[in-house]
Amino acid sequence: MPVGSPAVGDFDRVWVNANLCTMADGLGVVRDGAVASKGGRIAWVGPREALPDTDAAMTDCDGAWLFPGLVDCHTHLVFGGNRAGEFQRRLAGATYEEIAREGGGILSTVRATRAADEETLVAAALPRLDGLLAEGVTTVEVKSGYGLEFEAERRMLRAARALGRARKVSVTTSFLGAHAVPPEYKGRQGEYAALVAGMIAPLAAEGLVDAVDAFCERIAFTPEETEAVFAAARAQGLPVKLHADQLSDLGGAALAARFGALSADHLEHASAEGLAAMAAAGTVAVLLPGATYFIREERHPDIAAMRAAGTRMAIATDMNPGSSPARSLLLMLNMACTLYRMTVEEALLGVTRHSAAALGMADRGALAPGLRCDLALFRVGAPEELCYWIGGNPCAGRVVAGEDA
Amino acid sequence: MPVGSPAVGDFDRVWVNANLCTMADGLGVVRDGAVASKGGRIAWVGPREALPDTDAAMTDCDGAWLFPGLVDCHTHLVFGGNRAGEFQRRLAGATYEEIAREGGGILSTVRATRAADEETLVAAALPRLDGLLAEGVTTVEVKSGYGLEFEAERRMLRAARALGRARKVSVTTSFLGAHAVPPEYKGRQGEYAALVAGMIAPLAAEGLVDAVDAFCERIAFTPEETEAVFAAARAQGLPVKLHADQLSDLGGAALAARFGALSADHLEHASAEGLAAMAAAGTVAVLLPGATYFIREERHPDIAAMRAAGTRMAIATDMNPGSSPARSLLLMLNMACTLYRMTVEEALLGVTRHSAAALGMADRGALAPGLRCDLALFRVGAPEELCYWIGGNPCAGRVVAGEDA
Ligand SMILES: [Zn+2]
Ligand SMILES: [Zn+2]
Repeated sequence: MPVGSPAVGDFDRVWVNANLCTMADGLGVVRDGAVASKGGRIAWVGPREALPDTDAAMTDCDGAWLFPGLVDCHTHLVFGGNRAGEFQRRLAGATYEEIAREGGGILSTVRATRAADEETLVAAALPRLDGLLAEGVTTVEVKSGYGLEFEAERRMLRAARALGRARKVSVTTSFLGAHAVPPEYKGRQGEYAALVAGMIAPLAAEGLVDAVDAFCERIAFTPEETEAVFAAARAQGLPVKLHADQLSDLGGAALAARFGALSADHLEHASAEGLAAMAAAGTVAVLLPGATYFIREERHPDIAAMRAAGTRMAIATDMNPGSSPARSLLLMLNMACTLYRMTVEEALLGVTRHSAAALGMADRGALAPGLRCDLALFRVGAPEELCYWIGGNPCAGRVVAGEDA
Repeated sequence: MPVGSPAVGDFDRVWVNANLCTMADGLGVVRDGAVASKGGRIAWVGPREALPDTDAAMTDCDGAWLFPGLVDCHTHLVFGGNRAGEFQRRLAGATYEEIAREGGGILSTVRATRAADEETLVAAALPRLDGLLAEGVTTVEVKSGYGLEFEAERRMLRAARALGRARKVSVTTSFLGAHAVPPEYKGRQGEYAALVAGMIAPLAAEGLVDAVDAFCERIAFTPEETEAVFAAARAQGLPVKLHADQLSDLGGAALAARFGALSADHLEHASAEGLAAMAAAGTVAVLLPGATYFIREERHPDIAAMRAAGTRMAIATDMNPGSSPARSLLLMLNMACTLYRMTVEEALLGVTRHSAAALGMADRGALAPGLRCDLALFRVGAPEELCYWIGGNPCAGRVVAGEDA
């Protein structure tokens, strides 16, 4: 059914000979569909036979499948160094204690990130970003959190903004100063959390912060410390997100819901009550199967409870050097299906409409009039192939705000 | 240490400014190394400072890591259709019985493969092959086994040969007529196994068979039927391989060893005795972590027993539409490490020297004088990065028999 507004086609550009997954209502499949853009936004979507007459430039999609551009809503893709050597040592039998004694773990990434200038951070992140874009991603969230001091956190956020200028992609930033306790604050964790809360205003004043995130966990920050950071975010009018209940149930899901968070992420140990509170608050559950896989976590997020409560589920790479060196969002679709037994529709909503919601971006994530014309074209026979294959990249094109990217 | 033969460099071509993993002795790391070729073979390998004087054409590798071309030694990449729809149905709650009643499972692939002509099979397989090549693969094994009747098996093998002509890659074929019992032989399995044994001579006469494979399992062929097929292979002088002990221990590992098989593959349920017999026979263990992952098999191959026995381990994609729709050999490196806890050295040997051995190809799999000059260049900071990252492709070049591919 055509759902566009203009009666006569005043379009800049039209894509035809495509099958559509609009993601506007479930998969929203439209066979032999058309999409028209005007001024970088979608002006019309529907079956080709109903397309208004137009003399706009036509792009023939050759029967491929057209999706809204994919949204990776949880990444830590700016960081110094990597932890491949640590991975190798662990496989060779080194214990966590030995690795820590050798200076490994997250603090080795903090050291490498603090030592890197902005240009170095951008250069290291670009190939990782390019890998995502090659798969049809048009919006990427990037977190800070390996600086753990004002200038280094600022540098990470500036690097994220620079990535958004270097490529045709929307980069949205989350300030994650409360990611870990830096070594120099060992034993003075509350003091560090207060410091983080104080960083928000100046970083926001520079336009570097789209949202504020925190890691609420036994090995990171307490619910009270998290609330202090969230209160400071609220004072700046910034939305919040939370790394919640990954390794234990600290009530992170409910805490996120209480603050009206855009999302709570991980959630392996979240209670059904917490997940229901999220649904009521409109807080999206961001699921990170790459981390589940990589750290061999046997406990999985409670998909059944989320279905029952109506909690929206998103899927992201969590791309980071420690617990999820995952560089493929398409592979996360397969992992969400294979490991969590999410359905194809749930998985595909998870990298489009629901991941856009997890970033508070109401202007994208579906093919519908008025939304940004961000598109991803896949050379597959059916949408479920995006979830089925393990590896490989069928992306045949990407459009950002109406322009080939 | 330079290990080449010519005292003066009579080379066609030289690669310099590369770090090498020769894989000739463990990883065989040579920093700032050089490789020289002559007539499609490696003529010299060693540190650049020891490279003999030469006026051969120089290729600057810009500090990247040079490996022997990767060898994917177990694939079923020629097939009709795919089973994405079946995957979707299963995730939506359909039982195996319902899927089977709807005509799903391996027999749906048999139907689609029988219905496809050679050209269709090649066209469907090419993008899958191209994905492997893009990651640095220079040798691929391709099995038949979805025809299950003479002409359709022949067509699959001809398609595999056509793939080898269409791209710069060595394609080696395994005749797997004993993959499943075709529907028309239900209840007459022994009769079908005898028919398969009889197909070997005519297919071999056409030059279509490099090895003979079988699936020895409760749901497939008995050890006795397998032996009949292997005896027919031996009569033609063809080496054998075996899908062994994947779902239960039928003594497949020991059977393979008894026949001096090139490899026994899967091995999740193989006994320590069977694995030791393989080591003694020189039979390589081909491990397929994509299948373990995709079918969520909790039992893993007994890596410790293989280490103890000295069984050589290879890693392959098992690319197939039912149990491992895996299109990335690099990802299998990560899965072998993450799921099986193989070491970086074991994993990398598994896609080079040991996977070449699993195909009986003594002329490749390492960088050493006299071997084929098949190379893969990776833009990584260290070899362990090939195992560490989940997704993404750092391959920056491929050389086949001394020529850029
Ligand atoms: Zn995270
Ligand atoms: Zn197989």
